[in-house]
Parts: sequence; C-alpha cells; structure tokens
Amino acid sequence: MAEVRNKQVVLKNYVVGFPKESDMDIVEGTITLKIPEGSSDVLLKNLYLSCDPYMRFLMAKNTNVGFGNYTLNSPLAGNGVSQVVESGHPDYKEGDLVWGFTNWEEYSLLSSAQIRFKIEHTDVPLSYYTGILGMPGMTAYAGFFELGSPIKGEKVFVSAASGAVGQLVGQFAKLNGCYVVGSAGSKEKVDLLKNKLGFDEAFNYKEEPDLNAALKRYFPEGIDIYFENVGGKTLDAVLPNMRLHGRIPVCGMISQYNLTQPEGVTNLAHLIFKRIKMEGFIVTDFYHLYPKFLEFVVPLIREGKVVYVEDIVEGLENGPAAMVGLFTGRNVGKQVISVVCE
Amino acid sequence: MAEVRNKQVVLKNYVVGFPKESDMDIVEGTITLKIPEGSSDVLLKNLYLSCDPYMRFLMAKNTNVGFGNYTLNSPLAGNGVSQVVESGHPDYKEGDLVWGFTNWEEYSLLSSAQIRFKIEHTDVPLSYYTGILGMPGMTAYAGFFELGSPIKGEKVFVSAASGAVGQLVGQFAKLNGCYVVGSAGSKEKVDLLKNKLGFDEAFNYKEEPDLNAALKRYFPEGIDIYFENVGGKTLDAVLPNMRLHGRIPVCGMISQYNLTQPEGVTNLAHLIFKRIKMEGFIVTDFYHLYPKFLEFVVPLIREGKVVYVEDIVEGLENGPAAMVGLFTGRNVGKQVISVVCE
Repeated sequence: MAEVRNKQVVLKNYVVGFPKESDMDIVEGTITLKIPEGSSDVLLKNLYLSCDPYMRFLMAKNTNVGFGNYTLNSPLAGNGVSQVVESGHPDYKEGDLVWGFTNWEEYSLLSSAQIRFKIEHTDVPLSYYTGILGMPGMTAYAGFFELGSPIKGEKVFVSAASGAVGQLVGQFAKLNGCYVVGSAGSKEKVDLLKNKLGFDEAFNYKEEPDLNAALKRYFPEGIDIYFENVGGKTLDAVLPNMRLHGRIPVCGMISQYNLTQPEGVTNLAHLIFKRIKMEGFIVTDFYHLYPKFLEFVVPLIREGKVVYVEDIVEGLENGPAAMVGLFTGRNVGKQVISVVCE
Repeated sequence: MAEVRNKQVVLKNYVVGFPKESDMDIVEGTITLKIPEGSSDVLLKNLYLSCDPYMRFLMAKNTNVGFGNYTLNSPLAGNGVSQVVESGHPDYKEGDLVWGFTNWEEYSLLSSAQIRFKIEHTDVPLSYYTGILGMPGMTAYAGFFELGSPIKGEKVFVSAASGAVGQLVGQFAKLNGCYVVGSAGSKEKVDLLKNKLGFDEAFNYKEEPDLNAALKRYFPEGIDIYFENVGGKTLDAVLPNMRLHGRIPVCGMISQYNLTQPEGVTNLAHLIFKRIKMEGFIVTDFYHLYPKFLEFVVPLIREGKVVYVEDIVEGLENGPAAMVGLFTGRNVGKQVISVVCE
C-alpha cells in the first residue's frame, strides 16, 4: 500500500524540427503500489523502454498522419518490457514479465490491453523484447520476408543498417542466401556491419559525395530488394539502381521526420520502367505472425547465428538525450533505456 | 512487284525537353510490295498508328531507363493496326488484320514477331485496336484489376482521366461499383468525363490552385485506389489523401517525361502511415491476359456499356503534331493517326 516515487519523462513542448532535450522534462511524481478496488488494470514496474523513431510523430502537436500525439506534461509512451506488480486481470499475475505499450516512468497503471505479449523465453536478455524479440524484430521479419519476398541469391540494400531493424534485415538476408550491403552514418557503424553483423559490404553515406556512384559500385547489376528506413536522397539514388521487379518495403523515412519541408524524390518514374513494388507497412498489422517469428528467431539467437547490438542507457534521466540521439545517429544499435539502474 | 511510295515519319533530332514538330520529318521513300525470296517476314499495310506517351523515351538519345531508342532518320515505331499484304510466315496470310509494333510509314516489312495479335473481331472500329482493344485497354484492365484489386464501393481517383487509359479505368471502376473521380486539363475533357464517360465527378486540375483541397472536396473519406498517370504535383497531393491500405498502380508519369529535373515528391512517408502499395507496371507483362480481357470488354462495347473516345488525325503528315500534342494535352481521348485517308 506504500506510496513510492514515480520518476517520469514528460513532454514539455510539442516538437518542431529536430527534437531537443529541453522538449522533455524529468519529473518526480508518486504512485500507490495498489490497483484500485474492482479494477481490471495491471500495475507494471517498467524495466526497459524502447526509443523508436516513430515516437517523433507523437511528440508533434498536429501530426496529420493518423496517429494520436502525447499530452503535454504527461509521460511519453512506447514499447517496453515490464514486470507485473499487481494484476486485476485474470491473464496476468504478480511477477509475470510482459512487453507492450507502456509509459516512460518507473511504474505504470495501465489497461491490460496495453500489454502485447507475455514473455516466455527468459534465457535471453530481457532488453531484447524491445528489440530483436519485440517490435523492431517483428518489423524486420515482416518487412523483409512478407513484403520483400526474398529469393536466394538476390541483392539486398539496407539503409540505417546498424539500427534496431536494419541490423536484423541484413542478417536475415544473409541467412536467406542473399548478398547484402548496408549504409550507415559513421566508420564505427560500418565496421560493425562488416565485422560483427555479417553484411557483405557497408558504406558511410556521409562520406559518399555521389550516392548513385556508391550504389553502382556495390550493385553493378542492381538491387532486388531495398529495405527503406531513411527516405529522401537515399531513396532517390536507389530508384534508378533497382532491378526489374524489385521490391521496396518502406519501413521508415527517418531522414525526413524532422524536416518542415521533406526532400523531394524525383526518380519515381523508375517504378514503372523497372516494375517496382514499393509498399509501406506498420508492424501492428503483422503481430499475428509473432509466434511463428519467435520459433524462427529464438533458436538463431541461442545458436549465435543472429546477434543483436544494443545501445543501453541507464536511468530515465538519460531518456531525453537517448531520444534526441536517435535523430543525430548517436546510438550504435538498438537504443534502449534501462529504467532500473543495474 | 510494283515499287510504290512509302511515306514515313522519321526522327530528325533526339528530343530534349518537350518534343517539337521539327524533331520529326516526313520523308517519301519507296518500297517494293514483295517479300524477299525465302524470307519469313510479313509485309504490312499500316492502317492506324497509336500515339503513346512512352514513345517520348524512345525519342531521346540516352534514356537510361532500359528501353532502346529510335534511330535518327529512321521511322518512329509503335503500336498499330495493319493489314497483311504478303506473308512469308505460315501464321499469317494476305488480308489478315493484325495489331502489334510497327513503323510510322505506309508499308512495313517486318519480322512476324512484331505482330502481337491477329484481329478476330471486326464488327468494332479497327482503330480500337490501338486503344480500347489494344495496348491502352490492356493497360487499364491489368493496372486496375490486377494491381488495384478493387472492391465494390471503394473510392477511385484517376489522373489524365480522359486519356487513352484513364477513360477506361474510370468506366471499369464504375462497372465494378466504385465511386470514381477524374482529373483532366480542360473544361471540355471534364464535361466528357462527367457526361459521356460516367465518372461521378471530374475536375480541371489547371483551375485548382490547391490540389490537396480539391481532393479533400471529392474524397472527404480518402482515396482507396489512385490510378497514377501523371506523377509530380498530383501524386504529392494524392499521398496524404490516401486511405489505409490504399493502392497506387503506377501506369505513367506524363507530367515528368519532358522535364530535365523532375518535380520532387515530398509526401512519400504517407506510404508508411497508410500502408500503401505503390506499384509500377508495364503492359507487356500482362498480355497473357489478353484473351480474357477481350471476353470481358468486347461484349461491353457491343452492348454500349463501355464507350471509347478517340482523337483521330488523318495522314502521316499530321503525325508529328499529334505526337507533340500528347504532351500539351491537345488530344481529347485516345490519339490515333489514320494512315490511309478516309
């Protein structure tokens, strides 16, 4: 029945342009560790919170993209791994580990509908349920296999390749017998792609004055699948380098999210010449595949055939910087916030 | 065995920017109306020639889009309706009516592989085999039904809606129980769409200072299928107005073909938010459906349930102006050249 501290990361200002740390605030509230009488809610202790690019849209006042947005002076929210402290719902009990949509705070009292899945496999790092075993993992799986329809031997290009999703797309492509090249924004990330994540090639897009020439160098015969994470100039350079009947699963366009005027893409007529399918998707349409995905990926993790690079910061007070860093490329691998300091 | 006049439309200069009449020339050659001994070629008398936007690419020196190009001082080539004068190939005989890829001249000696189909139904205007019963008809059918996957009651937007393909997409959409709105570039075309072609609504895009507002007016609940013929600003205005799981079959982007620097499309992130599938296609991938298409469309023509608006100019000497007019919107309906003056 104790009232305890409940630290939160709240939205202070609606974001315009690039998010700044000062758009968020750390506040210390309190919470009673008890579910109200008769409630079917769940009380969660949040363990890991996920920093994801789509959250930028929820930080704006008017997104015009069909999402809701965060409320000023209320905590941010997103995917996270939590432990059930008390449950008013029969599906959950104290001690259960779950992942789903939770708030950026130490404890959250939420509707159980916010929980996406109960965590069954605990021989892997729990933080993985914000990444490889969570939303980004499912995103990579659905986007690459369901929309990309890869065939052994095909040529795959991944942008933001060391990110939460990209690093998995590359590894899934290699497991599928494809040739895969990734782009990223630093030498460190390029080294990671080539030496740890098993990409055939990787390049630093910031050091390529001519992206078209870079793509021609790595794909002299063209690209079959472009896994789109960034949009803008990269997409424009990719389009003329696509092969006949190429596929472009559109997962994100992170380079464009903070621009008041997005960059114009001029080479779309190549969609016709090359009969390209370009398809946007959102992972929530694919969670029915999650059990199948776990069957596929958990053994790969256990056998070391797929690795996952995380960038974990400790403490909610480092949340705002972690969020901002997503858009400057500061993170190396999946950006996670560990709520409970280790 | 007589040698006869063979008037031709030849390419005089590789086209840069908008094509001009002076990029083409009318020349009078001669041809012997006899197939060389032992040849399996066919000698065709060309009746109708089709003016199509894709031909613009073949008029450029270096298209970089994987098509070939026309040879200077040789005739243009494209789809046409012809009659066999003499055949060295057992599949064809004198008098057969055929359609396929032929030259812009009075008589053509060609490989029989250039013929796409023998014409079986002659109770409809022969010129229709350059339009509703030819490449544009098959394009509308494949793009709308195969890529668009229309469902009764869905909302369909067609650009270049009175053109060779657009007018059919609109009519197919109505037959399929969809709501359909078209855009075109003159009052005359808008009237045609509403009064003759059965579109629910139509507007003149040149008189809409705000295309986004125009689309919101006609599609307050958004667009399920956008049949893309024009690209550029129109596409950019359409993207935020698409509905969830919308489809954009990309047939053409005629507004962009003559620009040295195509317009930038800035709203592609909506592909993600709305889970949109945008897919380029070329009709040659769908000719296996031609017999099925004829079974569908010939009865509709006979019963008057589908109409087709043609813009027929007489004589090869009017070919260059007809070709140029495609890109200024001069034509009303499918642009055809009648080779033999009626």
